[in-house]
Amino acid sequence: MKRLRMGMIGGGIGAFIGDAHRRASRLTNKFTLLGGVFDVDYERSKEFAKQEEISPDRCYPDIDKFIEGELALPADERIEVVSIVTPNHLHYAFAKKLIENGFHVVCEKPMTMTVEEAEDLARLVEEKKVVFALTHTYTGYPMVRQMKEMIKSGILGNIQRIDAQYYQGWINSIIHGGDSRITGIWRLKPEYAGMSSCMGDIGVHAFNLIEYTTGIQVQEVLSDLNSVKEDVELDLDGTVLLRFDKNIKGVLRSTQVAAGEENNLTIAVYGSKASLKWGQENPNYLYMLSDTEPTKVLKPAHAYNSEFAEASHVMPAGHPEGIYESLANIYNGVAKAIKGEKTFDGEFPTVYDGVRGMKFVKSVVESNKNGNVWMKLE
Amino acid sequence: MKRLRMGMIGGGIGAFIGDAHRRASRLTNKFTLLGGVFDVDYERSKEFAKQEEISPDRCYPDIDKFIEGELALPADERIEVVSIVTPNHLHYAFAKKLIENGFHVVCEKPMTMTVEEAEDLARLVEEKKVVFALTHTYTGYPMVRQMKEMIKSGILGNIQRIDAQYYQGWINSIIHGGDSRITGIWRLKPEYAGMSSCMGDIGVHAFNLIEYTTGIQVQEVLSDLNSVKEDVELDLDGTVLLRFDKNIKGVLRSTQVAAGEENNLTIAVYGSKASLKWGQENPNYLYMLSDTEPTKVLKPAHAYNSEFAEASHVMPAGHPEGIYESLANIYNGVAKAIKGEKTFDGEFPTVYDGVRGMKFVKSVVESNKNGNVWMKLE
Amino acid sequence: MKRLRMGMIGGGIGAFIGDAHRRASRLTNKFTLLGGVFDVDYERSKEFAKQEEISPDRCYPDIDKFIEGELALPADERIEVVSIVTPNHLHYAFAKKLIENGFHVVCEKPMTMTVEEAEDLARLVEEKKVVFALTHTYTGYPMVRQMKEMIKSGILGNIQRIDAQYYQGWINSIIHGGDSRITGIWRLKPEYAGMSSCMGDIGVHAFNLIEYTTGIQVQEVLSDLNSVKEDVELDLDGTVLLRFDKNIKGVLRSTQVAAGEENNLTIAVYGSKASLKWGQENPNYLYMLSDTEPTKVLKPAHAYNSEFAEASHVMPAGHPEGIYESLANIYNGVAKAIKGEKTFDGEFPTVYDGVRGMKFVKSVVESNKNGNVWMKLE
Amino acid sequence: MKRLRMGMIGGGIGAFIGDAHRRASRLTNKFTLLGGVFDVDYERSKEFAKQEEISPDRCYPDIDKFIEGELALPADERIEVVSIVTPNHLHYAFAKKLIENGFHVVCEKPMTMTVEEAEDLARLVEEKKVVFALTHTYTGYPMVRQMKEMIKSGILGNIQRIDAQYYQGWINSIIHGGDSRITGIWRLKPEYAGMSSCMGDIGVHAFNLIEYTTGIQVQEVLSDLNSVKEDVELDLDGTVLLRFDKNIKGVLRSTQVAAGEENNLTIAVYGSKASLKWGQENPNYLYMLSDTEPTKVLKPAHAYNSEFAEASHVMPAGHPEGIYESLANIYNGVAKAIKGEKTFDGEFPTVYDGVRGMKFVKSVVESNKNGNVWMKLE
Repeated sequence: MKRLRMGMIGGGIGAFIGDAHRRASRLTNKFTLLGGVFDVDYERSKEFAKQEEISPDRCYPDIDKFIEGELALPADERIEVVSIVTPNHLHYAFAKKLIENGFHVVCEKPMTMTVEEAEDLARLVEEKKVVFALTHTYTGYPMVRQMKEMIKSGILGNIQRIDAQYYQGWINSIIHGGDSRITGIWRLKPEYAGMSSCMGDIGVHAFNLIEYTTGIQVQEVLSDLNSVKEDVELDLDGTVLLRFDKNIKGVLRSTQVAAGEENNLTIAVYGSKASLKWGQENPNYLYMLSDTEPTKVLKPAHAYNSEFAEASHVMPAGHPEGIYESLANIYNGVAKAIKGEKTFDGEFPTVYDGVRGMKFVKSVVESNKNGNVWMKLE
Repeated sequence: MKRLRMGMIGGGIGAFIGDAHRRASRLTNKFTLLGGVFDVDYERSKEFAKQEEISPDRCYPDIDKFIEGELALPADERIEVVSIVTPNHLHYAFAKKLIENGFHVVCEKPMTMTVEEAEDLARLVEEKKVVFALTHTYTGYPMVRQMKEMIKSGILGNIQRIDAQYYQGWINSIIHGGDSRITGIWRLKPEYAGMSSCMGDIGVHAFNLIEYTTGIQVQEVLSDLNSVKEDVELDLDGTVLLRFDKNIKGVLRSTQVAAGEENNLTIAVYGSKASLKWGQENPNYLYMLSDTEPTKVLKPAHAYNSEFAEASHVMPAGHPEGIYESLANIYNGVAKAIKGEKTFDGEFPTVYDGVRGMKFVKSVVESNKNGNVWMKLE
Repeated sequence: MKRLRMGMIGGGIGAFIGDAHRRASRLTNKFTLLGGVFDVDYERSKEFAKQEEISPDRCYPDIDKFIEGELALPADERIEVVSIVTPNHLHYAFAKKLIENGFHVVCEKPMTMTVEEAEDLARLVEEKKVVFALTHTYTGYPMVRQMKEMIKSGILGNIQRIDAQYYQGWINSIIHGGDSRITGIWRLKPEYAGMSSCMGDIGVHAFNLIEYTTGIQVQEVLSDLNSVKEDVELDLDGTVLLRFDKNIKGVLRSTQVAAGEENNLTIAVYGSKASLKWGQENPNYLYMLSDTEPTKVLKPAHAYNSEFAEASHVMPAGHPEGIYESLANIYNGVAKAIKGEKTFDGEFPTVYDGVRGMKFVKSVVESNKNGNVWMKLE
Repeated sequence: MKRLRMGMIGGGIGAFIGDAHRRASRLTNKFTLLGGVFDVDYERSKEFAKQEEISPDRCYPDIDKFIEGELALPADERIEVVSIVTPNHLHYAFAKKLIENGFHVVCEKPMTMTVEEAEDLARLVEEKKVVFALTHTYTGYPMVRQMKEMIKSGILGNIQRIDAQYYQGWINSIIHGGDSRITGIWRLKPEYAGMSSCMGDIGVHAFNLIEYTTGIQVQEVLSDLNSVKEDVELDLDGTVLLRFDKNIKGVLRSTQVAAGEENNLTIAVYGSKASLKWGQENPNYLYMLSDTEPTKVLKPAHAYNSEFAEASHVMPAGHPEGIYESLANIYNGVAKAIKGEKTFDGEFPTVYDGVRGMKFVKSVVESNKNGNVWMKLE
């Protein structure tokens, strides 16, 4: 085994999400972080590199220097894959440059600020034939993968209804804690967060879970969004009616102001023969309901699971793995893809998931703006 | 204590809901069933009366004979209160006659087939000054009443979102079990079920729970309904966007085709300070969430509950009471009202709840018919 | 249907358990309460009779007058079955007189104060051929009955371990709330409570559930009891090691001082092939675990249940029935037995369950007294 | 930050527990695995080293060569801390040599095969002043640490009862799957597993959790063990009565043959004022019960938690961390101790926990052998 040479853009001192990516990559033991641009402030970036025992030579002041420096190295020393964990509005520009220069990319979500940018990245990925992963982290959970495989097997019969929910409450303390804090939070400002807060930040995860687990695509949305307080510009809460083909309907609910909710992402798929329900806060429990049999509780590390689910955990039954292991599963898929190994269908979210996500957010925002009318996702 | 003299229309041999009303009324020990019209088939009605040890004199062939017979009796022998547990399309006509003749009425849900009929009953109830109760049975649970009281106390801060759900799966076996069974089931025929199946039968319970627990009214609805199979005329599934005043929004989801769901009625009310969640299948658990404190699980038989909640159960803590006791709580409220005793606010659903329910169903059906547009409930 | 003529000894004004028996009997609609001795204070007894609309003629001043009065009535008017809901130390004497005079008896638990009295009642019941039921109420729950039937079917393989628990916390407020309250509570006084508080009052229910659900008998016990505070004479807490035949072992845990526990009675039976777990606070959920299959959650109102379980509830799936319905199931079994109808095996606990229970309590108390040694139950 | 130089004894190709230690150490980012003796088969050991990109120079054929080789290196290149993840019977000899030569040690559980060996290691650790950690992994969970801190704060009042449970079922498939497999499994052979299977392997974790969370020590035990099948030499199941000082009692239950149980380790501590309950399979939920207040559900990432609990997770609320993160918390404590940083009380289990554990297992085995009598732990 030879660890992949990894770089990182963003994720320096105090950056929560960069830390998560590094932990996940270390869990796989298939990556070594060798360099990057960890902070816009070069001094802080270098301080971070020192902390992480990264060579100062490979701590670059900006993305262009990073690309220039790495390309100057022999191919077998050069960083192969780069994780982008900057603020949202910078994802596109950085991803574009990296892909154009042949780097594989792991990009935090949301992939871009607009559908056009997302489609541009998709074209580039195809052209440059790099591996591109978007970290819809929740798709790395073994029982989400089991859900995907079970649905693919047809065990549910015809799908009749699909519901997804993503509820958090943490923005309450911001919007009800005084105006000064509101202006301070970048997630509530369109120039940094893009066209949506709630739907763009978390609703899109629920959307992704729907398409990921069922393998079918949302055709149309009709949304009703709420910014809750007058001085908030973006949506903090919303409900989205969903239409799929074959007369399948559903609903996606998402909010950042449900007091006391932590990270309550759930999905339920109701079929003519059986149904499946999963929730992120107890990710190792998958519930299968039917009209004629007892409800079944599926858990990891059992022979009844699919090969894909069983390849997505390490511990024996009853030893709970969590969110870092889920992200590590995605990194593991990326490593396999870069090495040309055979991956499972859905082992990591791709640039096309990013395109779908942006289309979802755009359609939801427009449906709401246009008076709660149906908008197609195309 | 003098038991109230009770009659019943419908509810004869094999009738499930009539049996539930009788059990509930017996639990209270405040009613004695003395007569009625138990079946359209008079012979079967008499057989039922015999089974129940009811005097054959007071087993009447029809509603008119019932009224005539009872009015002929001295006032202190006459049946005082009548439970209507017939098929839905007969509720209105029977209720009307009974009210007009001064009987108190306990009516199964839905109260009527149309908003107009509902409003007509409301006028009559006012005019005749009778007690009229509509059995939204779930409002009898102690922790639903506790939820109502807590919200009234302002403990949640400003309500920001309201969600309700009512999921069942039992119609799957009908619609996927062959056409002959579809035509056979009255709930799927407009002439018996009215304008809606799913929303009219169960969605309206979720609607009622919202208005009951929060004390605020739905202003507008936008619905997307689904009859799931081509040969089904009525909705079996649907989602309804909700708008209240003060920019409060929410969603009501209801389905009869969620495979494996039994009677999954839930309500969640999210406020700026805290939230409350309740589910019918574990009715003695009320969850209070907040951004700053541990989630609290409230149960009956504790001093921390409101007086109303504590008056709504009998057993000490940890001895689960259920659906019959919930219905008995409503019957108990009716008995108190008939006797002129002071009742709690919300001790039984009234004719006005019936009017609201019919308006909800009508608006939901029209919103869907008109292309998923907002409809006001007035 | 002809309702059985029922009497009651004890259970007058303010008596919680008598009220529960009456509610349960009314739920079945197979009993009419016609008379009794409701209170040692005859005036209060008569007041209660009036409240309940019971004829003053049949409100008797004491048990002897009750027997005399009823025996003087024609057989088809005479009370047939009598519920004994007095304080514990009076059960034996009253039951004895009633059985001797040919009355069927429903007796609250504990049946007697000693094993000898229990065996005496058993002999009398055999001799007089009356129906005698002991209200181990928890055996009336549908999923307890389902558990019994599943174990009987052999689905668990060989039983390897049996655990039962009964935890409450309500005595905390008494023993930690001042001495005056301790002396006031009869449950802590040997002359009223018998030889044990915790084991006699609640541990014995857990014991009964073990023998009820598994159909096998405890052979030996080794106990360690705790009276927790110096000024308490009886056990408030204890653990009992259990031995059955075939090398099966288990443990029974019971306490009245587990702060915050309400009525947490659970049973788990572990077999070589599968296991079953049930808990009283969510009585409609039965969990079946196996090493190779997903955990299954069984609930009432499904075709997968046994005939006995399905005969033990009324409502369709998802409509929770509770503790009163459980007690009503026992009353229903009594009614069937009195009428000579075929009953299910285990439809009500008998005098022999009472004998077993007293042997259990005695052995547990002696094991503890003798220094935590094994004691046989014979 | 300078990563600690880490070695490993055992844990080569296919070794599950060595992998867990490496993942945990990588999660902390405070260790670099530089060498070791990964397998008794030197060729396989070297193959493993290659896989892990470990220098072949530091892949040693045995423990003596390891010590010799590392001591020959300059102090600032030498491995500082060594993880012992060999089969149980080798822990003692390897730990002894490493400590004697000044290496810090992280040792898998059980620490030794006998109490005497355990005490010997304790003396050596004191003498050599090395850091020694025993991986009672479950003590790394944030909510276990929160439980410890809450109990220390006195919030429960006087402890009245302590219960712990550790149930697994995986040995069923071995003992019921044919004799050949029984002889094949080292955990069932005394020469490898020591004096106990169930109590030594898992019961001791439950024991450790009791002493860890409450800070009080078990004084005496009385056990009843079961080897379930005739051809099994060691206990696979057992119950242990516990006595602490101040008349506190409790029970520890443990089994490896509870069909369908996965890794069901739980602890409940009942105090005069409140109680706490925790279970390993949902490790981020801590339940606090009281007689007067609603049950509270505490979770990580909240200001209401103790400083220690909050230092034991990374992710924001609702993002479940699991077993690897728990082990990483222990490794993190080890790193802090080696670097001389201030650690929390209980940040990693020490050699004294190992001594206590061995005393527990020995006493439990002897109590059972001697006819289920009380044995002191001294």
